[in-house]
Amino acid sequence: MTRTIVASATREIIIGFDQPFCVIGERINPTGRKKLAAEMAAGNFETVIKDALEQVAAGATMLDINAGVTSVNPNETEPGLLVQTLEIVQGLVDIPLAIDSSVTAAIEAALKVAKGRPLVNSVTGEEEKLEAILPLVKKYDVPVVAISNDETGISMDPDVRFAVAKKIVERAMDHGIKPHDIVVDPLVMPIGALGDAGRQVFQLLYRLRNELKVNTTCGLSNISFGLPHRHGINAGFIPMVIGAGMTSAIMNPCRPQEMEAVRAANVLNGTDPNCTNWIMTYRDHKPAEGGAVAAAASGQAAGGRRGGRAARAGAGAVRE
Amino acid sequence: MTRTIVASATREIIIGFDQPFCVIGERINPTGRKKLAAEMAAGNFETVIKDALEQVAAGATMLDINAGVTSVNPNETEPGLLVQTLEIVQGLVDIPLAIDSSVTAAIEAALKVAKGRPLVNSVTGEEEKLEAILPLVKKYDVPVVAISNDETGISMDPDVRFAVAKKIVERAMDHGIKPHDIVVDPLVMPIGALGDAGRQVFQLLYRLRNELKVNTTCGLSNISFGLPHRHGINAGFIPMVIGAGMTSAIMNPCRPQEMEAVRAANVLNGTDPNCTNWIMTYRDHKPAEGGAVAAAASGQAAGGRRGGRAARAGAGAVRE
Repeated sequence: MTRTIVASATREIIIGFDQPFCVIGERINPTGRKKLAAEMAAGNFETVIKDALEQVAAGATMLDINAGVTSVNPNETEPGLLVQTLEIVQGLVDIPLAIDSSVTAAIEAALKVAKGRPLVNSVTGEEEKLEAILPLVKKYDVPVVAISNDETGISMDPDVRFAVAKKIVERAMDHGIKPHDIVVDPLVMPIGALGDAGRQVFQLLYRLRNELKVNTTCGLSNISFGLPHRHGINAGFIPMVIGAGMTSAIMNPCRPQEMEAVRAANVLNGTDPNCTNWIMTYRDHKPAEGGAVAAAASGQAAGGRRGGRAARAGAGAVRE
Repeated sequence: MTRTIVASATREIIIGFDQPFCVIGERINPTGRKKLAAEMAAGNFETVIKDALEQVAAGATMLDINAGVTSVNPNETEPGLLVQTLEIVQGLVDIPLAIDSSVTAAIEAALKVAKGRPLVNSVTGEEEKLEAILPLVKKYDVPVVAISNDETGISMDPDVRFAVAKKIVERAMDHGIKPHDIVVDPLVMPIGALGDAGRQVFQLLYRLRNELKVNTTCGLSNISFGLPHRHGINAGFIPMVIGAGMTSAIMNPCRPQEMEAVRAANVLNGTDPNCTNWIMTYRDHKPAEGGAVAAAASGQAAGGRRGGRAARAGAGAVRE
């Protein structure tokens, strides 16, 4: 069984097919957040602190830490800023972190100060990336996100993306890195632009799970880019990728609809034993939508062992 | 490609792997609804009419019609009541219907008056049922729901349930009924009582789709029986069963959360071309939950063809 172990100073988390879905909080990332970028560049970490606490409170399993504020020379400025951000967050919350940067020097600087066993985010199939990142992953004995694109870009052919993922896993093995420390990102495209984006990912996840036997992740909300009511698409996508074998995602844990989908999928996938987490979270749930009455099960008795229409209707219908 | 054709007086619907998920409205069923049972027994069809109109307005693809009011002798009373109910509904709405009864005489009486091509609900693997229902299915050239239990009850072993489904398909073929006219119900058990219930169904659906190549259905809300916030479990279950190959379900279309999950899964499964139905339904969607700002995509440009962290974050994150 594939087990990717990540850890904070004192807490260890396992990413795996038999584990609850690993929610990697995406909020601490200035990409596309001008205000946050300006704050971080000015040494103001108020929003970072707020985002860290809120994401943990909302149920994040891990937090992604990105300090890529737009800069003339990120190679000079990003290492210091990433280290500063990481140290603030790991001094504040005790959950595993992902070190997220496209700057190799920033990743190494963060690895030097990180407590526990962080996840490196990321390497790609590009030669330059492989040769820069894999030695660090080996040296610091940490897992890494492997994004399935290379010098030629992102292939629209899922088989090519699978081949890129396989190449990264093999190259990592050449460096002495075990496949269970590679978390493959099959790359999620916007379904509004590419109608096949969902089925591509499901097919890739199936092969990644059954052939490469690796854990997987993705930038989840990419799927809904450009569509109205994105949270509804995201909340439908989560159970589908979990059912197809995905074991983690970089996403916003502060969205109740998405987190509810994660919790439901954990119940249905058998990784919330006795539905304990679901029941603790929703036992006092009151439906918010107009016209709905109590959502809790009515007093009807469950159908007996005999099947057929009567048992089905008696046990199951939500009568309101 | 498996295609199960159902029809009303003028409208034909295809159930199939490449079709939008077929939502069979479950409301017109007095099982567990004492008030409705009393009304129907007294010849009052006000609730039936209301339920028919509401379910069609909510987006049902088909309507299930059950007139099984508790009675001393259903063999005498149910045929007449089912025919009456069916005629009222098919005079009111023009979508395909499912004739739902455990009384063979009621099914035949309804088949005699039904317009179009109704779905018979249901046959099981029980010898008596097979010999009673399959000749009617052949005579009236209609599709039938095949529930995967037999004289021994519902097996907890998915392989046995698969074997029962296979037996029904083979027996139907002996009667000259094509496999594409068999819609298998793999039987959904409550996940709160049986932690494996989800994975059992996903595994069965995979085999039913790939080995028997049949369409499938289920009493969907059974899965959440006994749990708090059942709609959340149902809404997570829907994308998972659709991803696993289920093509229809008997469910309540008047629940917005469940129908949103159906629509999202159709988008992601490639059966809502150009996301047209999603966009038409949710283009003016305003999130109801506290703290949420506009859910529509922000003005960020989608990432280019090059992958990696920056493209992923830029294209995908829902920033609010």
